[in-house]
Amino acid sequence: MSVITIERKVLEKNDELAAKNRELFKKNKIFTANLVSSPGSGKTSVLEKTLEHFKGKLHISIIEGDVQTNLDAERVSKYGVPVVQIVTNGSCHLEAKLVNDALSNFKLEGTDVLFIENVGNLVCPAAYDLGEDMKIVIASTTEGDDKPLKYPRMFLNASVLLINKIDLIPYLNCSIEVLRKNALQINPELEIFEVSCTTGEGIGKWCNWLENKVHKK
Amino acid sequence: MSVITIERKVLEKNDELAAKNRELFKKNKIFTANLVSSPGSGKTSVLEKTLEHFKGKLHISIIEGDVQTNLDAERVSKYGVPVVQIVTNGSCHLEAKLVNDALSNFKLEGTDVLFIENVGNLVCPAAYDLGEDMKIVIASTTEGDDKPLKYPRMFLNASVLLINKIDLIPYLNCSIEVLRKNALQINPELEIFEVSCTTGEGIGKWCNWLENKVHKK
Repeated sequence: MSVITIERKVLEKNDELAAKNRELFKKNKIFTANLVSSPGSGKTSVLEKTLEHFKGKLHISIIEGDVQTNLDAERVSKYGVPVVQIVTNGSCHLEAKLVNDALSNFKLEGTDVLFIENVGNLVCPAAYDLGEDMKIVIASTTEGDDKPLKYPRMFLNASVLLINKIDLIPYLNCSIEVLRKNALQINPELEIFEVSCTTGEGIGKWCNWLENKVHKK
Repeated sequence: MSVITIERKVLEKNDELAAKNRELFKKNKIFTANLVSSPGSGKTSVLEKTLEHFKGKLHISIIEGDVQTNLDAERVSKYGVPVVQIVTNGSCHLEAKLVNDALSNFKLEGTDVLFIENVGNLVCPAAYDLGEDMKIVIASTTEGDDKPLKYPRMFLNASVLLINKIDLIPYLNCSIEVLRKNALQINPELEIFEVSCTTGEGIGKWCNWLENKVHKK
């Protein structure tokens, strides 16, 4: 039995479980977003800003995925939302089974949005469907404007690109215009928002878009 | 046959090939460093600064590893050094076999240093020995100071930590002191340098350390 056959079987099994998760989200009308990015691009910061914006308005639950520690779960739990931390113990991505296990800790009825913050990794999580409505990729301006070309699968599989840390642009050798162009070259369907979690710029626009998606679900 | 058995076999085979590479580097007295980090932490920028520093002094060769594109090879080739680009076509890390294949493109005799720039990924490349003398992990201040705790294996397996983008500290919610403390908590043996590829700060100190290592080989 070859490694490729094993990998295919792992992915097939994952897809089956992802379909079950998707069914569960559909039944409970939960809009589910799989947040993916490099380490330190600001997935947790975007979540914090989003939770702040929707406090008392939407019921948001969160699954945090990390190789180690529950630091991110601690950060978002301050906003009083239900949160479950998955520690992958060395594994480089979340899988549908881990998400399914985590779901038993939530009251799904009445939940409007579920954010799944994946392990910080711009490669491996692209291959794993978790049952989400969409992948949202965050790219920080500090990483440079060439990342969509170098890690194309993630940008191809995502529906939304959040360009984060736009407040740092004056100090960087990064062009938002080039970053946008490179991202759209890989995936012309990408919805793009520019945000800063430090100044709050662009967060309102992103949240309005999200609210619209939630109401359509 | 389980997935775990397959993975172990892949790693065993990799270790055998890594040992062959190591033998080759030893025979030719080449100091070899495996550069690892998140995407966009500045691996290529550190290489550029290092090449600039050693121009006409040391014979440096470079292997670039990327999921897609040869953008990084184009950048470093401007410094007139031998460079081979490995495109992994979706794979999230370099393996010893790929490095071994690339070596046939270099004249090893007379080479002082070989830098292997791994795929931007703070998880998977930690598990793969390429035959290098040491892994050098780059962490950018823009990623925050908690990364050693969240991605411990990479910091545990590295010998050197380059803290990059220190010029951006005034604009960030990141403490170099906390970053150092977290890194040393995971690996008390880490040699740590603070650098900025934008201002050049700290590059001299890092290069002096490297030159010393090369002369000892």
